[in-house]
Amino acid sequence: LVTITLLTDFGLKDGNVGVMKGVIWNIAPGAIIADLSHLISPQNVHEAAIVLNRSAPYFPDGSIHVVVVDPGVGTDRRPVAARLGPHFFVGPDNGVITLLLERVETGGSTTSFIHLDKPEFWLPDVSNVFHGRDIFAPVAGHLAAGISLLQLGAQITDIQRLHFPKPSQIDQGLRAEVIHIDHFGNISTNIYQEHLDPSALPVISLCGARIKGLVKTFGAQAPGTLIALFGSTGNLIVSVVNGNAAQKLGAKVGDIVEVKYS
Amino acid sequence: LVTITLLTDFGLKDGNVGVMKGVIWNIAPGAIIADLSHLISPQNVHEAAIVLNRSAPYFPDGSIHVVVVDPGVGTDRRPVAARLGPHFFVGPDNGVITLLLERVETGGSTTSFIHLDKPEFWLPDVSNVFHGRDIFAPVAGHLAAGISLLQLGAQITDIQRLHFPKPSQIDQGLRAEVIHIDHFGNISTNIYQEHLDPSALPVISLCGARIKGLVKTFGAQAPGTLIALFGSTGNLIVSVVNGNAAQKLGAKVGDIVEVKYS
Amino acid sequence: LVTITLLTDFGLKDGNVGVMKGVIWNIAPGAIIADLSHLISPQNVHEAAIVLNRSAPYFPDGSIHVVVVDPGVGTDRRPVAARLGPHFFVGPDNGVITLLLERVETGGSTTSFIHLDKPEFWLPDVSNVFHGRDIFAPVAGHLAAGISLLQLGAQITDIQRLHFPKPSQIDQGLRAEVIHIDHFGNISTNIYQEHLDPSALPVISLCGARIKGLVKTFGAQAPGTLIALFGSTGNLIVSVVNGNAAQKLGAKVGDIVEVKYS
Repeated sequence: LVTITLLTDFGLKDGNVGVMKGVIWNIAPGAIIADLSHLISPQNVHEAAIVLNRSAPYFPDGSIHVVVVDPGVGTDRRPVAARLGPHFFVGPDNGVITLLLERVETGGSTTSFIHLDKPEFWLPDVSNVFHGRDIFAPVAGHLAAGISLLQLGAQITDIQRLHFPKPSQIDQGLRAEVIHIDHFGNISTNIYQEHLDPSALPVISLCGARIKGLVKTFGAQAPGTLIALFGSTGNLIVSVVNGNAAQKLGAKVGDIVEVKYS
Repeated sequence: LVTITLLTDFGLKDGNVGVMKGVIWNIAPGAIIADLSHLISPQNVHEAAIVLNRSAPYFPDGSIHVVVVDPGVGTDRRPVAARLGPHFFVGPDNGVITLLLERVETGGSTTSFIHLDKPEFWLPDVSNVFHGRDIFAPVAGHLAAGISLLQLGAQITDIQRLHFPKPSQIDQGLRAEVIHIDHFGNISTNIYQEHLDPSALPVISLCGARIKGLVKTFGAQAPGTLIALFGSTGNLIVSVVNGNAAQKLGAKVGDIVEVKYS
Repeated sequence: LVTITLLTDFGLKDGNVGVMKGVIWNIAPGAIIADLSHLISPQNVHEAAIVLNRSAPYFPDGSIHVVVVDPGVGTDRRPVAARLGPHFFVGPDNGVITLLLERVETGGSTTSFIHLDKPEFWLPDVSNVFHGRDIFAPVAGHLAAGISLLQLGAQITDIQRLHFPKPSQIDQGLRAEVIHIDHFGNISTNIYQEHLDPSALPVISLCGARIKGLVKTFGAQAPGTLIALFGSTGNLIVSVVNGNAAQKLGAKVGDIVEVKYS
């Protein structure tokens, strides 16, 4: 009972996500399919990489994650598939697996990468503009139906990786970045527990606001309060209790976040 | 073949809904899962209660409804599960089941309530901020996989209930409220057939507009006409034929609706 | 293992799509269901016809497509079902199948049409306002559970069709229309390869902009460039590389597109 997830920037109004499911079910009837997100900002491969990394590890071993955010469709960017520890990935070679790959490498699991160069596993007619339908959905279907990863194409090692900034040391603290704004307006940073001095009180500055100390959860303060805490993926996040921090602060991805100690 | 439904305020862009499905399928492989809505207004437990009540009864007996609108996550609000007649509920104890529970009690079906206090049915690491993933999805998975409700925790009787206003009698009529605005801009009130005098012509007033009499359906009048009728859940609704009544009238939840007879 | 697709203008916030799934699973437990789109513009049957036509052919033979964009619900518009070659359709008789039907007829496949006039295949209580739940979902469930199309009602031949404009010849070229704007802002026209002179360089004019020649895919030009190309469904589309052409040009469905040759 293989599980397939779909992660794209296709939106939900045009039927393109449904089409991918139809193609998969033609090859792997009844395959279990979950949508991760189809509201990735158009062409934003970094955002898709973050959503993939926070979602994929919660799926059963053997799950196939199809990620199609594909500004290079129809050019010479390669279609690829990969084994990332217990998970499979199918999509364009654009670095979207970077964070998940780093996690798997840190964990010591096996990885392998395939250039999808065998048209017999694609739809008969391949357009120049919709490889999610024409290449990636059929390949995921064949994987789900029992074709092995190595049958799908030639093995490669030079997989694309994206750059994700890491926090840097500054005088008496660190300088980091906003990496994601979620549906609630929570502002997620690239700061993890390991980056903070556990023996001192951190003061977080971003977008002209200053927050002293961390709380454990949203309900720990009165509605409307600006708070900092560790979010569900381990990142330091800045929130407004029952409110929208990104709107309140005008925060956006790439904004600078500084932590000092008082 | 157990069916699970998910109802949250998580939105659709961050992958959190997908994550819950992954967690469920790790425990109950292939469980059938339907999304009820993930566009509940942030922290709006009343809105979720209305959507749950209009949706859950249409699902097969034995369905498990996971409802996570959870401003109190990580505080001392209890995680709970319940049997509500033929249905199961899993989520924070915040009153979201109020309307469904009243319906089940009116129908004379059995109810029972459980405080989810057994961490062996949760993910090993429970965050302070995402119990949908860490507690409620795994509990739903275990229920779907055959664990009985009573095994999941201690029985309780003091379940939370929300207040939903009922129409009140006024001079020659009744005073009611807007309780929901749907995707089409239809304005739903807390008035049911039983509240109206069937022998008289009702005149409905809200937001400065007056509507005389009820029609049977949308297409009964010309496009653009403001009409009142009974909606698909039995509530009196105010609509604009092929238009958006809430936008036209500037209506919002909580606005006063008066019915008099002419 | 029958596949059912759902295509509506219900939006995603009120639970109505979930309700239809619950009704289906009561009759056909575990039926595989995919959402095509629920963000069709309210009452826009033409838009639904386009999405159905670009999506349905990619689903397995025997799939059942339930399309509910239904401004005439509760009036005397007929509920219908149809066999369209290898596919089934269930929904109001409003012409939404027009393009798919033309495709099937062109391909020479069998078609048949049924007036859904047997209430024993509906929910016991049929509202005047939500036939997606009360008639079409249960009929789809019965079809999926093995009831044959002909059992569902009386055969008819006078199925509704919508008018979709075709390009017309003008002096040294052709005059066409914008028929769809997708999630990315790509502008889709009713021009296909067969309408263009393959031996000449086309110049496309719309909304005050002029584009000389076609490219093969989005990545063929620099970001921000206005381009014309054949889209994933064979239509000529106008796009901005990594941008939103509809926003840039202020284009909307029905706008005139002219092609001349230079």
